[in-house]
Amino acid sequence: MTSASTNHTVTVKEKKKRIVAIGGGTGTFVTLKGLKSYNQHLSAIVSMSDSGGSNKRIRDEFGLLPTSDLRQCIVALSDENGGVGLLRKLFMYRFEKGEGISGMTFGNLFMAALTDIVGSQKDAIEQTSKILRIRGSVIPVTFTKTNLVAHYEDGSVEHEEHCIDEPGHDGTLKITQLELQPEAVANPRAIEEIQKADLIVLGPGDLYTSILPNLIVKGIREALNQTKGKIVYVLNLMTKYGQTYNFTARDHLKVMESYIGGCIHTVLVNTTPIPSYALSVYAKSHEYPIIDDLKDQKKYHVIRQDLISSHITQKSSSDTLVRSFIRHDSDKLGYALIKSLEDES
Amino acid sequence: MTSASTNHTVTVKEKKKRIVAIGGGTGTFVTLKGLKSYNQHLSAIVSMSDSGGSNKRIRDEFGLLPTSDLRQCIVALSDENGGVGLLRKLFMYRFEKGEGISGMTFGNLFMAALTDIVGSQKDAIEQTSKILRIRGSVIPVTFTKTNLVAHYEDGSVEHEEHCIDEPGHDGTLKITQLELQPEAVANPRAIEEIQKADLIVLGPGDLYTSILPNLIVKGIREALNQTKGKIVYVLNLMTKYGQTYNFTARDHLKVMESYIGGCIHTVLVNTTPIPSYALSVYAKSHEYPIIDDLKDQKKYHVIRQDLISSHITQKSSSDTLVRSFIRHDSDKLGYALIKSLEDES
Repeated sequence: MTSASTNHTVTVKEKKKRIVAIGGGTGTFVTLKGLKSYNQHLSAIVSMSDSGGSNKRIRDEFGLLPTSDLRQCIVALSDENGGVGLLRKLFMYRFEKGEGISGMTFGNLFMAALTDIVGSQKDAIEQTSKILRIRGSVIPVTFTKTNLVAHYEDGSVEHEEHCIDEPGHDGTLKITQLELQPEAVANPRAIEEIQKADLIVLGPGDLYTSILPNLIVKGIREALNQTKGKIVYVLNLMTKYGQTYNFTARDHLKVMESYIGGCIHTVLVNTTPIPSYALSVYAKSHEYPIIDDLKDQKKYHVIRQDLISSHITQKSSSDTLVRSFIRHDSDKLGYALIKSLEDES
Repeated sequence: MTSASTNHTVTVKEKKKRIVAIGGGTGTFVTLKGLKSYNQHLSAIVSMSDSGGSNKRIRDEFGLLPTSDLRQCIVALSDENGGVGLLRKLFMYRFEKGEGISGMTFGNLFMAALTDIVGSQKDAIEQTSKILRIRGSVIPVTFTKTNLVAHYEDGSVEHEEHCIDEPGHDGTLKITQLELQPEAVANPRAIEEIQKADLIVLGPGDLYTSILPNLIVKGIREALNQTKGKIVYVLNLMTKYGQTYNFTARDHLKVMESYIGGCIHTVLVNTTPIPSYALSVYAKSHEYPIIDDLKDQKKYHVIRQDLISSHITQKSSSDTLVRSFIRHDSDKLGYALIKSLEDES
């Protein structure tokens, strides 16, 4: 029985559960896609400090907040059928031709044009969500125009998200402090969703450039510590050179907790070995499977199971960013998260 | 009683009439918008040799056929309500920001991306027509990649549509020959629509860059001479410097007939004087109201009435093309055309 066919056997009691996924990158895309079919009250809280690729131009030339993460989440939650299915494909499309256009995503241009037409990025996000008939809500973590700043153990500093993502310096250096400049204030809707949530999913995703950029927004830490919702951390599959070089599972949690305190309840860990051909590709970038060193602890409830996708992601030739190609499987992850809702431990 | 409210008093007998508008520019946009509400079988045959502004980039950088005229006709026939209404606005949107993006129309980028996704421009036009829920069909006159070439009375030659539209030389020079290089072959659907039509509308629009570029496509002349449909020519309001300097109504018809023979049955002529402030603006470009010298002839059935719009069109600041700002009124023109269907003369 595949995980997709088991969807129907999951019985979530009483009314719809409120599930909030926090992140923004492809990890959150995978999470939302996996949760979409369960007909719960779903929302995505999305980081707004992305500055790489198409986003950089959206910020610099259009003076807008970055939209790539919003766009990905909207696509993840959108209707995949009929005419909307084609719009959805367009939304994911990246131009490979056109001077000044190649490398831009259609969805970012769509949202830039729509913002100009409807008058605000907030309204443009809502209208886009309607046009793509999304199941759930996509919520920017903040409307503050802000940049991510990382301080490293050698005293160096990187400004802007894309510089942290692909730093010029030695990628084994640890980040000692991450902050937003200027300080960003949480979107009240993000706080409300966290407070009301039954389940809050952190990750998977790049620790310092997808997950923490949400958690360090003023107001989010407090909301996470006040909510009665269960907070689940989905551990990444691989370490990331420049961010989490040689990090174990505990290292990830330790960093997270230094920003949000001890509110994480459950950790979801993949147990299936990464295929050796993928390992060799990652090893060239000094990236390795994250070691599960959570076996001798009782602080977290750890769920260990097969969560890996057998599908290898292809990258567009005009895409200038480095992206992971071994991913969590949407169906497996969605199922595990829904099951964790029922888990009374 | 306004022309809009008279729509319901027009009774077109029996089954739906087949109406074909031939052109491509803003004149055809106005025609289609006016005809849309009459619930007839409507189609637009659109020139494919446009090479100015956003089209130039679509041709040069994306290697596609020009889409601006198609886009305008699709917008003219599209559903103006609900979510589609917003997509329609997006489709007309012209970017004013972004290096390499400013000046591009969203609709052209939409169709370029969609062509890449669905595999052909033909299918992209069909899918776009579905997404924007158009009433009728928009048909490229040809799928040949071709350029408009104009020969002038002084022996000079202009290649490409946008050079003819805004020629470097003296705009009083007459065009002695217009051709497509390479020769373009008509889209079989365009021929079929003309052959089956009850009414064929030529113009309004720039004679040498919007109307004739359709008529000189191989196969169109023959179809126009074989059809039993009534061919109506909507006379422009103003002469155009560089194309029809000092042309009278007869001059327009004489040029048309040199390309398609004597198949024009009816001429629709505006009788309302152009406001003096508009005249003074046009006069600066050596453009004047077209003189109606068709009063002493019996070759054409001439319908004279008020056809002018009181609405003055605003131009986007990032739009690099020169566009007319006194236009035909959609409702008045649509009504006149529908009435001409009933006219037994």
